[in-house]
Amino acid sequence: MIVVMKQGATKEQVEHMIRRVEELGLKSHVIHGTERTVIAAIGDKRDEDRQSLESGPGVDEVVAILAPYKVASLEVKRERTIVHCGSLSVGNCHLGVIAGPCSVESEEQTLATARAVKAAGATALRGGAFKPRTSPYSFQGLKMDGLKILAAARAETGLPIVTEVIAAGDVPLVAAYADVLQIGARNMQNYRLLEEAGAAGKPVLLKRGPSATLDELLLAAEYILNAGNQNVMLCERGIRTFETHTRYTLPVASVPYLHDRTHLPVVVDPSHGTGHTSLVPRTAAAAVAAGADGLMLEVHPDPETALSDGYQSLTFRQFEETMALIHRVAEAVGKQV
Amino acid sequence: MIVVMKQGATKEQVEHMIRRVEELGLKSHVIHGTERTVIAAIGDKRDEDRQSLESGPGVDEVVAILAPYKVASLEVKRERTIVHCGSLSVGNCHLGVIAGPCSVESEEQTLATARAVKAAGATALRGGAFKPRTSPYSFQGLKMDGLKILAAARAETGLPIVTEVIAAGDVPLVAAYADVLQIGARNMQNYRLLEEAGAAGKPVLLKRGPSATLDELLLAAEYILNAGNQNVMLCERGIRTFETHTRYTLPVASVPYLHDRTHLPVVVDPSHGTGHTSLVPRTAAAAVAAGADGLMLEVHPDPETALSDGYQSLTFRQFEETMALIHRVAEAVGKQV
Amino acid sequence: MIVVMKQGATKEQVEHMIRRVEELGLKSHVIHGTERTVIAAIGDKRDEDRQSLESGPGVDEVVAILAPYKVASLEVKRERTIVHCGSLSVGNCHLGVIAGPCSVESEEQTLATARAVKAAGATALRGGAFKPRTSPYSFQGLKMDGLKILAAARAETGLPIVTEVIAAGDVPLVAAYADVLQIGARNMQNYRLLEEAGAAGKPVLLKRGPSATLDELLLAAEYILNAGNQNVMLCERGIRTFETHTRYTLPVASVPYLHDRTHLPVVVDPSHGTGHTSLVPRTAAAAVAAGADGLMLEVHPDPETALSDGYQSLTFRQFEETMALIHRVAEAVGKQV
Amino acid sequence: MIVVMKQGATKEQVEHMIRRVEELGLKSHVIHGTERTVIAAIGDKRDEDRQSLESGPGVDEVVAILAPYKVASLEVKRERTIVHCGSLSVGNCHLGVIAGPCSVESEEQTLATARAVKAAGATALRGGAFKPRTSPYSFQGLKMDGLKILAAARAETGLPIVTEVIAAGDVPLVAAYADVLQIGARNMQNYRLLEEAGAAGKPVLLKRGPSATLDELLLAAEYILNAGNQNVMLCERGIRTFETHTRYTLPVASVPYLHDRTHLPVVVDPSHGTGHTSLVPRTAAAAVAAGADGLMLEVHPDPETALSDGYQSLTFRQFEETMALIHRVAEAVGKQV
Repeated sequence: MIVVMKQGATKEQVEHMIRRVEELGLKSHVIHGTERTVIAAIGDKRDEDRQSLESGPGVDEVVAILAPYKVASLEVKRERTIVHCGSLSVGNCHLGVIAGPCSVESEEQTLATARAVKAAGATALRGGAFKPRTSPYSFQGLKMDGLKILAAARAETGLPIVTEVIAAGDVPLVAAYADVLQIGARNMQNYRLLEEAGAAGKPVLLKRGPSATLDELLLAAEYILNAGNQNVMLCERGIRTFETHTRYTLPVASVPYLHDRTHLPVVVDPSHGTGHTSLVPRTAAAAVAAGADGLMLEVHPDPETALSDGYQSLTFRQFEETMALIHRVAEAVGKQV
Repeated sequence: MIVVMKQGATKEQVEHMIRRVEELGLKSHVIHGTERTVIAAIGDKRDEDRQSLESGPGVDEVVAILAPYKVASLEVKRERTIVHCGSLSVGNCHLGVIAGPCSVESEEQTLATARAVKAAGATALRGGAFKPRTSPYSFQGLKMDGLKILAAARAETGLPIVTEVIAAGDVPLVAAYADVLQIGARNMQNYRLLEEAGAAGKPVLLKRGPSATLDELLLAAEYILNAGNQNVMLCERGIRTFETHTRYTLPVASVPYLHDRTHLPVVVDPSHGTGHTSLVPRTAAAAVAAGADGLMLEVHPDPETALSDGYQSLTFRQFEETMALIHRVAEAVGKQV
Repeated sequence: MIVVMKQGATKEQVEHMIRRVEELGLKSHVIHGTERTVIAAIGDKRDEDRQSLESGPGVDEVVAILAPYKVASLEVKRERTIVHCGSLSVGNCHLGVIAGPCSVESEEQTLATARAVKAAGATALRGGAFKPRTSPYSFQGLKMDGLKILAAARAETGLPIVTEVIAAGDVPLVAAYADVLQIGARNMQNYRLLEEAGAAGKPVLLKRGPSATLDELLLAAEYILNAGNQNVMLCERGIRTFETHTRYTLPVASVPYLHDRTHLPVVVDPSHGTGHTSLVPRTAAAAVAAGADGLMLEVHPDPETALSDGYQSLTFRQFEETMALIHRVAEAVGKQV
Repeated sequence: MIVVMKQGATKEQVEHMIRRVEELGLKSHVIHGTERTVIAAIGDKRDEDRQSLESGPGVDEVVAILAPYKVASLEVKRERTIVHCGSLSVGNCHLGVIAGPCSVESEEQTLATARAVKAAGATALRGGAFKPRTSPYSFQGLKMDGLKILAAARAETGLPIVTEVIAAGDVPLVAAYADVLQIGARNMQNYRLLEEAGAAGKPVLLKRGPSATLDELLLAAEYILNAGNQNVMLCERGIRTFETHTRYTLPVASVPYLHDRTHLPVVVDPSHGTGHTSLVPRTAAAAVAAGADGLMLEVHPDPETALSDGYQSLTFRQFEETMALIHRVAEAVGKQV
């Protein structure tokens, strides 16, 4: 941590801040520049609380040097984490493909989709039983019935189930059916939920919030990791920017950035990341070329009648074509589905 | 809702979409433009699900005409909602001032602050007992003990207590102590929490998520209103943008915009909205000039030692000066604290 | 400047970077932290080029400590700059009000507006003769004829003229008619234009680009200041964010932020900053409460027939009411129009 | 264009707006919905000026139906434009690779780079002679001398030269040396420059401004196309968002989006799009997978001593490896360098 003093900060102010740094259990080291004095605070603790130093007398700003996360860091664990769950492998040279409907709407719709995505090469089935919806007037999911339908789809196809849990209190129920617990973007900083999901003993797929920084995503992952769960997949699903031609903006550079910082695998969701079916195949290919360890894709038998997200869902035929493209790109970059 | 067809959409595609619109229980009305055909879909239902029409054949986009929210709308209730809670009144000509520490750290710190903000003219006390923290390594709040300290501060000063509840399961406990339940920005779309808070019978202060649109904020408010609770205050606390000289960007135009659309009162939080103490007084004044119905301000006896948010907290002296400024501006725009 | 080495950077890498820092004419100072080594580079030169150090071996990042701008800095000139130009005074306790149509459309429209805004208390007239338009199919301005109409309006009302110059080659022509040269948001980083405008001997109003940081705005101002022109007004006119309910997002905290860093006066443009007439009066009041030294407001005799920006223009009546509100708020914060 | 009336708009207001629509030479068509009345305005003219209708009495908003651009549209020209310029081909199945230093610093540096990128498979040489710099204290380019060095590099390697022109007045000079005129991001809306560059008879590479929408990019391209120049390449170079771990955010979905709307080829600049060397190879691969028609890459013999942009430049070795990756991905998606 570097405490940058204002130009013209007095000797007393500098001395006061040195004392404050030392009271926090850090070693201080003062550097007198030509225009400003800075105090380096040396130690290995990191937490956001010490930014309160910024309100000390004569202080201009406090600059963090250490990344705020720890156990997610590649500096702590050099070996890349691979999440294995039945036919789904995510990480290192393994590219997992998680496909299925946004919402579980009926047994027929879900089973038809499960069969189709399995045939086309998906390695896991996604489908929402509990749906967090922006509007209280929108379809909220089949809940318990949805979980049972997913279990039936697994029984028939063998695909592991990835499904969202939206409240800490629901974790035991959802974990009883799901193979992977998904934490949605709206809940990335629902810390109680992260802790409960972390303690449930199932792999967790953690989606980035649409305005979360990557540091905040990694800190959210630490809530899960600290609950004793090593099987965490990060998921880039797009951020909110001024762009409106896409529903969200999908920053593919997140993939190599995260690979430089963390051992956790990175999944990309081109369906939410673009919000338009026509843009999904090419951004899925781009994600794979960027090094993604997994893809999450919405597929529906008849998108225009979907109860949610039809505008970004692939038909069975489109999914097949997308898988062909993905296979070619995966091979070019040394990944295998 | 307007379904815009692509240029060159066929007669069959247009007819197909007319059928789809009518299957949704809406009346259709086709307009043949010089370059494109559009289908107006007439009816009063609004929900996001029908945007799945966008994946129909030959469809370019679907444009909503009706606002997605209902009961929060000024079109439904023309009279402005005023939330009264002890000395706190928020709405219409009433400007509520909610001040206090970010976190309840100790009885001494909280009581000293309560006395100081009361003396300077605050009408409610804020203070966090349950703290949602970005990092698992940061101070997480005194929890139950914090609630008791807040109750003691109320007993002494008479100020009503505004405090955050971060999980649906905590609502009964927090509601037993708090006068106003605060839903934090990270939880704006934690729907289970919104429903529980709505059902608890206490006024709710709902903070905007940093990447939420104002439509999404109003829809989140509808979750609370639909739980039978009319005492909802919206709180603008800044959004995430490319600006880094402030921690968030505070869009004061949200105040007149919301006043044009909803009867709910609008509170502004200049502390989180700027993230730097030096910017708080002037942005608080700006919020009042923009017509805000309330302010939420962080105040701490010694900001540089605060366990959270010291960098944006006012000292007692700074709070007093800010209150003097606020009073003058409030008078200029016809508001009374 | 602080060079932050990666964890595990070798002794050779650190030594290499020390040499590099010294080759740039800076003094180096090494600090060995518990996890990382950092090299402080001491000296008073600032330029962005040295960030290339970031690609040195073992370097994680380079953090700037000094602000990149110099002559605009409050550290260099403690006395606030006031721009005087006829009836227009901008800075310190003076609030300038620059009002008029977006585009000069006709002599009648411009003169009528000039009379109306003068009567209501404006201290300068704005109006575009050269219009930079997003679309080549939009009205591009009356050009030379527009300048003559503005001169006629000045002759009649005595109001100084603020008008935009959009190309370096046009500076002599525009400067022959205008009292203040306006650099539009699209041209904030058109450096040739900044240099020419700076050399023309007239005050310059420099608008912030919609994605420019405040540091970039101040650096653009330095291009003008370095051309020997001290009469520079900065103008906050809103930034591009994910918000779409307003055309741009107006961050009023820019006003106190800039006042903390620079001696240059700060003007706010609530018309472009919100993009909707109904939001203009209240955001204008907010800007004044935030400490703005000037306002720039679009006014039109009949906004719905305006050839540009009608959606954000005030009628004469609305401008009068806005001026009344502004006067009350200005008085509350110690400013005089 | 759809004029959406407010709920409760009167009959007179609707009739007034019908008259206004017809005065603009458009046919009107009224639809009475259950809650609101809308007026469809039919005709093929598009310009932003008519949005002034929004300030008409009783109007809530005006929604555009037609895209604002014309000649760039795929609806107008179905055949994809391919830009050929010596060894550089951009468009359809051709992937152009434009590589070289950010700035021309010396003959030695430029020739060494030209040889290296040619050997590794680049099809054009980039290099800046006129540099638009954020800070007046940064290196501003070798100007005329830089152009001569570029010409020497072309003479030796045969690579066509892509270089930036930053002012309308410089177009004749730069066009005398360059094979492709580059319009930088800061100048995307410098309309005088667009017109001059369009008239110079050389292909133009137009970079997206960091806060420009894709509609605005296409409208800027229309300024060039309307000057009679069909050889326009669009360049996605990243947008400004809240992300700070990358210097800009590179939205690869721009590529398929633009391919759906325009016949113009799309180049991607992963160097500026990420701002960190380590992220460039993978995002370059992602751009190709997304369907990009060209890449623009910064390469420098010794990035840490570069006078500009060293932090995002590849070494010769890194460029070679990146080219190998690009070749494999290009083959997977049916493109040839």
